[in-house]
Amino acid sequence: MVCMCCKKQYPVNNMISDVHYWQNGRIGDFVVKQPMILGHEASGRVVKVGSSVKHLKEGDRVAIEPGVPRDIDEFFKSGHYNLSPSIFFCATPPDDGNLCRYYKHNANFCYKLPDNVTYEEGALIEPLSVGIHACRRAGVSLGSMVFICGADLSSDRLAMAKELGADFLLPVRKEDTPQELSKKVEEMLGCMPQITIECTGVQSSIQTAIYGTRSGGVVVLVGLGAEMATVPLLNAAVREVDIRGVFRYCNTWPMAIAMLASKKVNVKPLVTHRFPLEQALEAFETTRQGLGVKVMLKCDKSDQKP
Amino acid sequence: MVCMCCKKQYPVNNMISDVHYWQNGRIGDFVVKQPMILGHEASGRVVKVGSSVKHLKEGDRVAIEPGVPRDIDEFFKSGHYNLSPSIFFCATPPDDGNLCRYYKHNANFCYKLPDNVTYEEGALIEPLSVGIHACRRAGVSLGSMVFICGADLSSDRLAMAKELGADFLLPVRKEDTPQELSKKVEEMLGCMPQITIECTGVQSSIQTAIYGTRSGGVVVLVGLGAEMATVPLLNAAVREVDIRGVFRYCNTWPMAIAMLASKKVNVKPLVTHRFPLEQALEAFETTRQGLGVKVMLKCDKSDQKP
Amino acid sequence: MVCMCCKKQYPVNNMISDVHYWQNGRIGDFVVKQPMILGHEASGRVVKVGSSVKHLKEGDRVAIEPGVPRDIDEFFKSGHYNLSPSIFFCATPPDDGNLCRYYKHNANFCYKLPDNVTYEEGALIEPLSVGIHACRRAGVSLGSMVFICGADLSSDRLAMAKELGADFLLPVRKEDTPQELSKKVEEMLGCMPQITIECTGVQSSIQTAIYGTRSGGVVVLVGLGAEMATVPLLNAAVREVDIRGVFRYCNTWPMAIAMLASKKVNVKPLVTHRFPLEQALEAFETTRQGLGVKVMLKCDKSDQKP
Amino acid sequence: MVCMCCKKQYPVNNMISDVHYWQNGRIGDFVVKQPMILGHEASGRVVKVGSSVKHLKEGDRVAIEPGVPRDIDEFFKSGHYNLSPSIFFCATPPDDGNLCRYYKHNANFCYKLPDNVTYEEGALIEPLSVGIHACRRAGVSLGSMVFICGADLSSDRLAMAKELGADFLLPVRKEDTPQELSKKVEEMLGCMPQITIECTGVQSSIQTAIYGTRSGGVVVLVGLGAEMATVPLLNAAVREVDIRGVFRYCNTWPMAIAMLASKKVNVKPLVTHRFPLEQALEAFETTRQGLGVKVMLKCDKSDQKP
Ligand SMILES: NC(=O)c1ccc[n+]([C@@H]2O[C@H](COP(=O)([O-])OP(=O)(O)OC[C@H]3O[C@@H](n4cnc5c(N)ncnc54)[C@H](O)[C@@H]3O)[C@@H](O)[C@H]2O)c1
Ligand SMILES: NC(=O)c1ccc[n+]([C@@H]2O[C@H](COP(=O)([O-])OP(=O)(O)OC[C@H]3O[C@@H](n4cnc5c(N)ncnc54)[C@H](O)[C@@H]3O)[C@@H](O)[C@H]2O)c1
Ligand SMILES: NC(=O)c1ccc[n+]([C@@H]2O[C@H](COP(=O)([O-])OP(=O)(O)OC[C@H]3O[C@@H](n4cnc5c(N)ncnc54)[C@H](O)[C@@H]3O)[C@@H](O)[C@H]2O)c1
Ligand SMILES: NC(=O)c1ccc[n+]([C@@H]2O[C@H](COP(=O)([O-])OP(=O)(O)OC[C@H]3O[C@@H](n4cnc5c(N)ncnc54)[C@H](O)[C@@H]3O)[C@@H](O)[C@H]2O)c1
Ligand SMILES: [Zn+2]
Ligand SMILES: [Zn+2]
Ligand SMILES: [Zn+2]
Ligand SMILES: [Zn+2]
Repeated sequence: MVCMCCKKQYPVNNMISDVHYWQNGRIGDFVVKQPMILGHEASGRVVKVGSSVKHLKEGDRVAIEPGVPRDIDEFFKSGHYNLSPSIFFCATPPDDGNLCRYYKHNANFCYKLPDNVTYEEGALIEPLSVGIHACRRAGVSLGSMVFICGADLSSDRLAMAKELGADFLLPVRKEDTPQELSKKVEEMLGCMPQITIECTGVQSSIQTAIYGTRSGGVVVLVGLGAEMATVPLLNAAVREVDIRGVFRYCNTWPMAIAMLASKKVNVKPLVTHRFPLEQALEAFETTRQGLGVKVMLKCDKSDQKP
Repeated sequence: MVCMCCKKQYPVNNMISDVHYWQNGRIGDFVVKQPMILGHEASGRVVKVGSSVKHLKEGDRVAIEPGVPRDIDEFFKSGHYNLSPSIFFCATPPDDGNLCRYYKHNANFCYKLPDNVTYEEGALIEPLSVGIHACRRAGVSLGSMVFICGADLSSDRLAMAKELGADFLLPVRKEDTPQELSKKVEEMLGCMPQITIECTGVQSSIQTAIYGTRSGGVVVLVGLGAEMATVPLLNAAVREVDIRGVFRYCNTWPMAIAMLASKKVNVKPLVTHRFPLEQALEAFETTRQGLGVKVMLKCDKSDQKP
Repeated sequence: MVCMCCKKQYPVNNMISDVHYWQNGRIGDFVVKQPMILGHEASGRVVKVGSSVKHLKEGDRVAIEPGVPRDIDEFFKSGHYNLSPSIFFCATPPDDGNLCRYYKHNANFCYKLPDNVTYEEGALIEPLSVGIHACRRAGVSLGSMVFICGADLSSDRLAMAKELGADFLLPVRKEDTPQELSKKVEEMLGCMPQITIECTGVQSSIQTAIYGTRSGGVVVLVGLGAEMATVPLLNAAVREVDIRGVFRYCNTWPMAIAMLASKKVNVKPLVTHRFPLEQALEAFETTRQGLGVKVMLKCDKSDQKP
Repeated sequence: MVCMCCKKQYPVNNMISDVHYWQNGRIGDFVVKQPMILGHEASGRVVKVGSSVKHLKEGDRVAIEPGVPRDIDEFFKSGHYNLSPSIFFCATPPDDGNLCRYYKHNANFCYKLPDNVTYEEGALIEPLSVGIHACRRAGVSLGSMVFICGADLSSDRLAMAKELGADFLLPVRKEDTPQELSKKVEEMLGCMPQITIECTGVQSSIQTAIYGTRSGGVVVLVGLGAEMATVPLLNAAVREVDIRGVFRYCNTWPMAIAMLASKKVNVKPLVTHRFPLEQALEAFETTRQGLGVKVMLKCDKSDQKP
């Protein structure tokens, strides 16, 4: 049931969560108690497949979905395997990640990449999946008015958001109250957005998200912040603004691959740095300092191009 | 477009909101600035219909939906007229209610009662509608495990909840923490409920609702409390427990009538007191003191039976 | 991953499909090519569990879901394992059924019965599941107007439908056209039903279902008839009456158990005949002759009570 | 409640339905019994507004939604006003259309065009709305695999489909059976499409749509053909392929305007011919002969540019 992947051309992205585990040894309740391999955003090349695997063969280029349910419980059976409490997840203690040359993974959660999707794009399907799942939870479709809280505080990243498709940008200043910000969003768009995707987890930003969403709309919580948050729940309730969380993703890889293959979505500009695996420390340091957006680690020293 | 109803046999329930307007002259932002007629839960008999009205005629017994949208805005067009900001609503200032002998209402929001549904039942469709809308928002269906927070603190009312269909009761004590209460609910049911309907608006109860709902489930906020609430939003987000408000109802009268006519739902035991319209003050006083559940005001002095 | 069940108190229902395999050796494309054990509606007692099974132990009383997906494919991952083409299904060739004393089944598809649910009720969860899945596909909820085509042509069974909850009965005569029948349904109900559940698979009945369903409503196809059917598709299209099929069920056992345990649903009257396993032929003969409704086969000769 | 529109810059598209009424005096049950003004795809400039209209003023450029519900019935209340049987609809007998210089329409169904959306685009919102409604009914989202039956039989129009975004084209030959065609679609896409949008109404094409759609998927019927159709309903049922009709649209104008304003959707290439209103006959003749795609009629003779 499992396949072995040799990520000869192994691009691995070190995300914020990896940096946390590396620096602090914990994220919330997840504590690293013994040496753990990092990495949960990866693609690679198959070097060996189990005898029962039919959809993959040696040499196939694949993207890896890092979460693999262990139990066929009610969540898995009903199509929400991401909510299964016993799920295996790369680089969430105690489960090892896939930032290594050779890695073994359940073949059902390895997806063949078409020729026109690169390894780097394949590795970026993981963060793209968070976005897809958030959009599905929100019911985003063509023509939806969407307000994204937390593109960034830095002007560089805001500029990139614009480049990648944002129609308007609203830089946040310390003194702005959530109500004021929500009014500004309405003025910019000409109406209140039906959907707000909150990506910071910061309390004031969640408040802005609620005040700023149209009656009957949806606030999706992607950002993960403090355990308790003080929010205008009454405002949300009487305007029937739904609040929906996002926990990773499920059933997103096939859609992400279709989106990348069709060239309707371009994730390439997100990769701002590349390092060979040997320079992993330097790569992590770059991310820790908040330089660039996505930093790629590549197994094959001789291939450092996109 | 309007019909005149003479509620000869006029049963009106004075609800908590009416008591609030009567005692305090306000509920939140809604302030009574000039004399206002109370009453939003009513049924009656038609005495006159407009010339264009086809579905009603003089003598018909009808239940009255108190909210009538004024504008054909995006909310009305998309089937959520309850969210239309300019909606007319009985006894929400500055709109007069229907606690009076003769009352004029948009015929499209008057629904003919079948012979086997009484006037009292017709008047109770309004609070029943809150329940129907909450169940729809929650996705309740036969076999759903539902946890209702706030049936009551008083043992009488808890007993009535049991009588009306609750499988388990959990009396709340001051010292119980939300986490402890949610554990108790799980133990009682044998599993966590998929759906929690919060009916108090009290912060600690909302917290219990969130902790107590199964991953992938729904918390519906019926209770309306303080503007800001401190809640475990992270817990809700990572377990994808949706939080959905309820603002009154829409499209519920036909279903409510079908439910009552089929005798699958029995609201009659909820009426604990009856007064002729002349004793309105006494009726309101009864409600204010928290005696009984529903107190009926009836226009026809000579008919005070159910 | 598997558990062994000894159905000491083994009630097995022989359904139409079993009778078909027994008499004709085939249903459509499914052809019995070698001896096959019949039976797909069963409950039993656990005699042995695999070492990794946590939710069951020896002696537990369980209901058996006969379909077990073999592959973790897109259908399984997205919560529709019933549509997985490689699914194992009891008594669908070449898979053996469970009409035998000892039977081994995937533990994830065995569900513990509460004390107040009998073995017979447990065995009837399979046909009940078809109904639950159909109702879910249709969006049936309390207060829905539902028209069921094909309760039966025989007056006995129609009477039982009435006893079990039908509000109206409409006996079908040969000369009635689909349009006439649909008009009669509307007259009986006072309006067109939003939902029609077609249970015969007969072309004229499907036509009645389409004509008879309210605009914006749903026709659910439970009955499985001829490969091709001539139907008023234009009528369905311009009134946006959706046509949705039902293929068995998924995720129904927990809800069915909750429904039976709550005593809100009573399937007991459906069992009209009981036989010890030794008299299987007689039992099948009874079903073939169309006598009674559900015929139970029980493993324990000394226990033939409900 | 109504506004007057002077379509000084009046682009009107004469669609197939208009040609039918012009040539045959009927479409199905809709028969033209007295002189009727044609036209249901229009935009224009407001010359006068009713006193209660708040969202429009003289001089505003607007797109016109041709269907306006007359009754506040259950369909309107629940957000499906397109299904209201008494709806007013431009150029559907006996209702006059808007192919004229001055035209009066309910202001709630006139939508202000942003400066960057042209009158021609505004007029094309009507056919675009059919597409939006079909996509909503189908659940199309970014990354969905969609199979559209009936782009065209002519190679010109197929080429335009490609230009406008189709990834693959499959020309249909007389001798191809529906099953063969559905296999070819699967081969082209690498998998079966989840969604098929049938746009011909032709029986063989509906059959292809059903056979060709993935289990658990959706066939949307846009094409309107013969009253009765012979289709593989059993195949659809056991694979739970839903069949959903489309009747015009509801709540699409705001989304269409957002799509056009964002420049994510380009309808301009669809306009292949333009005529001044005075040459209406010539315009209709062009459409009747199947030349071009959309033929525009423009009120202002001096302005015949896009
Ligand atoms: N729900 C999930 O499954 C899931 C998955 C991945 C990441 N996350 C969460 O999503 C969030 C974003 O992840 P990321 O990797 O993009 O992190 P990141 O640190 O790169 O991005 C967070 C951004 O929020 C901005 N920000 C902070 N405070 C703000 C404020 N008050 N207003 C506006 N912007 C503000 C920061 O400038 C930063 O750009 C994190 O909270 C992370 O934990 C959740
Ligand atoms: N969302 C809506 O459209 C809508 C409509 C009607 C009423 N409401 C709201 O619903 C709530 C209930 O309305 P009602 O008319 O039944 O009021 P009510 O006062 O009769 O009922 C509230 C119940 O909550 C109980 N309660 C209070 N604190 C509690 C706690 N900590 N734990 C458990 N129970 C507790 C009380 O004992 C009382 O029985 C109110 O908040 C009201 O504003 C909302
Ligand atoms: N979709 C699924 O997953 C699924 C599962 C189980 C059964 N089925 C199908 O459901 C149907 C019913 O199964 P069953 O076990 O109840 O079979 P059954 O033979 O017991 O019931 C069929 C009923 O339809 C009645 N009937 C026949 N023609 C009729 C007509 N023209 N009008 C009205 N009634 C008519 C018969 O009198 C009979 O009572 C069968 O077609 C079966 O193949 C489908
Ligand atoms: N449901 C609605 O609300 C709605 C609204 C508008 C139009 N329509 C219907 O949609 C259909 C298309 O409308 P239109 O204006 O684009 O008409 P059209 O005549 O321009 O397009 C129909 C296309 O189908 C093609 N076609 C015919 N037979 C085919 C076959 N066997 N295989 C493949 N393609 C085939 C034709 O070549 C033509 O290009 C019509 O049936 C019309 O009645 C429905
Ligand atoms: Zn990540
Ligand atoms: Zn009330
Ligand atoms: Zn069965
Ligand atoms: Zn048109």
